[in-house]
Amino acid sequence: MAVGNLPFPELPPLSGVRLGTAMAGIKKPGRRDMVLIELPETATVAGVFTRNAFCAAPVVVAKQHLEQCASSGLAPRYWLINTGNANAGTGEAGLQDAYASCAAVAEQAGVEQAQALPFSTGVIGEPLPMARLLAGLPGAFDTLAGSSQAWQQAGEGILTTDTRAKGATVTVDIGDQQVTINGITKGSGMIKPNMATMLGFVVTDAAIEQSLLATLLRETVDRSFNCITVDSDTSTNDACMLAATGTGARIESDEHITVFRNALQRVMTELAQAIIRDGEGATKFVTLQVNEASTRQEALDVAFTVAHSPLVKTALYASDANWGRILAAVGRAPVEAFDVSRVVIDLGDVRLVENGGRAGSYTEAAGSAVMAEEEITIRINLGRGDESATVWTSDLSHDYVSINADYRS
Amino acid sequence: MAVGNLPFPELPPLSGVRLGTAMAGIKKPGRRDMVLIELPETATVAGVFTRNAFCAAPVVVAKQHLEQCASSGLAPRYWLINTGNANAGTGEAGLQDAYASCAAVAEQAGVEQAQALPFSTGVIGEPLPMARLLAGLPGAFDTLAGSSQAWQQAGEGILTTDTRAKGATVTVDIGDQQVTINGITKGSGMIKPNMATMLGFVVTDAAIEQSLLATLLRETVDRSFNCITVDSDTSTNDACMLAATGTGARIESDEHITVFRNALQRVMTELAQAIIRDGEGATKFVTLQVNEASTRQEALDVAFTVAHSPLVKTALYASDANWGRILAAVGRAPVEAFDVSRVVIDLGDVRLVENGGRAGSYTEAAGSAVMAEEEITIRINLGRGDESATVWTSDLSHDYVSINADYRS
Repeated sequence: MAVGNLPFPELPPLSGVRLGTAMAGIKKPGRRDMVLIELPETATVAGVFTRNAFCAAPVVVAKQHLEQCASSGLAPRYWLINTGNANAGTGEAGLQDAYASCAAVAEQAGVEQAQALPFSTGVIGEPLPMARLLAGLPGAFDTLAGSSQAWQQAGEGILTTDTRAKGATVTVDIGDQQVTINGITKGSGMIKPNMATMLGFVVTDAAIEQSLLATLLRETVDRSFNCITVDSDTSTNDACMLAATGTGARIESDEHITVFRNALQRVMTELAQAIIRDGEGATKFVTLQVNEASTRQEALDVAFTVAHSPLVKTALYASDANWGRILAAVGRAPVEAFDVSRVVIDLGDVRLVENGGRAGSYTEAAGSAVMAEEEITIRINLGRGDESATVWTSDLSHDYVSINADYRS
Repeated sequence: MAVGNLPFPELPPLSGVRLGTAMAGIKKPGRRDMVLIELPETATVAGVFTRNAFCAAPVVVAKQHLEQCASSGLAPRYWLINTGNANAGTGEAGLQDAYASCAAVAEQAGVEQAQALPFSTGVIGEPLPMARLLAGLPGAFDTLAGSSQAWQQAGEGILTTDTRAKGATVTVDIGDQQVTINGITKGSGMIKPNMATMLGFVVTDAAIEQSLLATLLRETVDRSFNCITVDSDTSTNDACMLAATGTGARIESDEHITVFRNALQRVMTELAQAIIRDGEGATKFVTLQVNEASTRQEALDVAFTVAHSPLVKTALYASDANWGRILAAVGRAPVEAFDVSRVVIDLGDVRLVENGGRAGSYTEAAGSAVMAEEEITIRINLGRGDESATVWTSDLSHDYVSINADYRS
C-alpha cells in the first residue's frame, strides 16, 4: 500500500556521475540488490549517519573512509550499496566484510580502499554473503552509466520492503548557470531517523567546499529525514550522503548558498515524504504541525509523541475522528508546566480542541469528513512561544502488522 | 485474546467494606457499568493519579476531595466508578458533572460531598451521560454488600475493552493478627501508566496512618503499574487507590511495615501483570529485565524502548526470533556514552547478543523454541553498573489493530 501516486521522476544525467546495478542474489534471485555509484575526482562528499549505538559495520567503515579521504585529500569515488542484508549486529566479522567489499571496489576501479564507502540495508544480524556480493560486483561495474534510466535502476536496486522507487530532482539558476540536484532514497519500516534516514543518496553538479557541504546536508536533513517517523524505530544503518561533483557552478556567496539550500531542502523533503507515503502498510499521509512552542525541541517532542501513538495511528487507519486520542497523546508529551487550557488542535480546517476540551463548534460529521481523506494535517498550537516543527507520519494498519510479522519468513 | 489462564480469585470480605454495582446503560445496556465502593469511617485513603497534562475531570475532583478530607479530618467514604465514558477532554462541563456525581452519592449516603471520589473510564471527549448515571446510582446503593461475589461483580463492573475481570488477594500475619489485601483493576489498552494504571482499587483491613499509606502506595505502584506498557499511551484517567479500613492490625513498626509492603507489592504486581496478560490483542506476556545499568532510570529507559518498539512487538507476535530488532531497539535507547560491546542479551536461557553482535553459541532453532512460548523473558545486561528494572509488556497483533480501529464503531 502507499499514499499518493508518485511516479519516479526523470533524473537528468550529471556530468561525471555513473550508476551501475547488479542482481547479486543477496536479497532474492532475479532482483536488483546491488548498486554502485561512481563520482568524479573533483567531487566533495558529506554524510550523516544513524545515532543508534548498535550502528552497523558499513556505517562505521563509511565514516572512517570519509575521514581518511578528508585527511589525505582524496575524493570519495564510489558508494557501494547492497540490500537484503544490513551487516548490522555482526561484530568484528561484519567489519572485515565491509572492508573487504571496499577493497574489491578499489581494486576493480584502481583507487584507494578509503575512496569506496559501503552501505547495507536489510535483515539485521545475518553475515553478509560475501561470495555473492563479490561475484555480483563486476556486473555493477559493467553497467555503470549516467543516464536517467541508470538513476531509476539505482533507485530500484536499494529497496527492501518499499513498494516503489523514490527519487527527486530540482534544477535552479545559480548566477548564469544551472545547478541540478538528484536524489534517491529507500525506507519503509524501522523509520524514525536520527541524523539520517535509512539510506539516501543525493548528488549535485555544483562545486561546493566540503565543510559547507556538510553544513548544508545537516541543516536540510534536520528538517526532512529527521522529521519523519513510521514506527519510532531508529535503524542501525541510517545514512544520507550528499556529493557535489564540482563540475558546475561554484556555490560560495551568501546569495547562492541560500538559493542552493532551498533547492536542496526541496529535494530532501520530497524524498523524506516519499518514505512516509510508502511507509509499511500506510493508508494515510499525515502532517503534524506544532506551533507556538517555547523551543523547536518542544515542538518536535509533541509532534513525535502524537506521531508515535499507536492509538492515534489506529484511529487514523480507521478514519475515525477519535480526537480524544490526539488530546491524550499531546497531554503525555514531555512538556514542563504544561497549561493545556491554552492548547488548540485543528484537524484539517476543523477545530477539535480549545479551552481544555472539545471545541464548541466541533461536529462529528466535520471531523469524519477530514479523517476520510488520504492526506491529513493535524495542527497543534501550544500557546507557549514562537517555535514550530513539522513531522510527517503514516497510520498503523493491519498491513503494517502483516509485513512485520512475516518479514523474515 | 489473553495470555495465561487466570480465573478471578475469591476475595474475602473485609469488615466495613461493601461494593455495589448497577447497569446504568452508560457503556451499553445490560452490562454492569457502575461500581460503588463503600469504606468505613475509620478508613485512611491514598491515591496516585495520571501525569497526563490533559487529565480527566474525575482525576481533578478525586485529588481535590482527597485533599479536602485530609485537611478537614474526614474519611473518604465512597469511590464511584463508571465505565463507558472517561469524562476527559470535557472542560468545565465535565468538572461540573464530576462534582454532581459526588453530590448525588453524598446525598444518598448522608456524608459530605468531599467524602465521595469519582472515577471514570471509557471514551474520551464525550459528555458524561448524567441522567443515566444518576438514575443508576440508587441501584448501586441497593446492591452494596461485602461478599466475595460483590468483589467479583465490582471487578466486572469497571471493565472496558478488557476480556476478563482482574483481582488479587493476599493474607499475611502481622504479629498475632492476620491482615488481608484485596484489589481489583481494569485496563487493556492506552496502557503506559505514569504514576498509576488505568484504574486500580485496593483495600486492606489493616490500620495504617495516612502518610505511611501514601508512601507504601507510591513505592509499590512504582514497581508494578508504573512498569507495564501495552502501547506506550498514558491515559488521561489513570488512578490507583489504596484504602486501609483501620479495623485490623495496626502497621507501625519497621518489621510490620516490611511484611505489609511485601504483601502489598505482591497484590500490585499481580494486578499490573493481569493487565498485560489481558492487553489488547495480546498473545504473549513478555518480561523485560534490564540489569547492570548505572541508574534505575536508565534501566527503565532501555526496557521501555524495547517494550515500545513496534518491530520487536510484531516479531514477538510472529514468534520470530528476529533478535536484530531487539538489538536495534536497545541501541536507540537514550543512554549516554553507550558501549554496546559490553551489552549481553538473553532470550529466555538462550544467549542472543554479546561482544557487539550475535552470540557465537546462538542457533536459530534455540531462539525459535523460546519465541514459540506464550511467556517470554528478555534479559538485557548493560555492563554499566548495578541498577535494575523489570517491565512487562505484550505483543502487537492484528487484534490490537482491529480492536483500536473499531473501538468507537
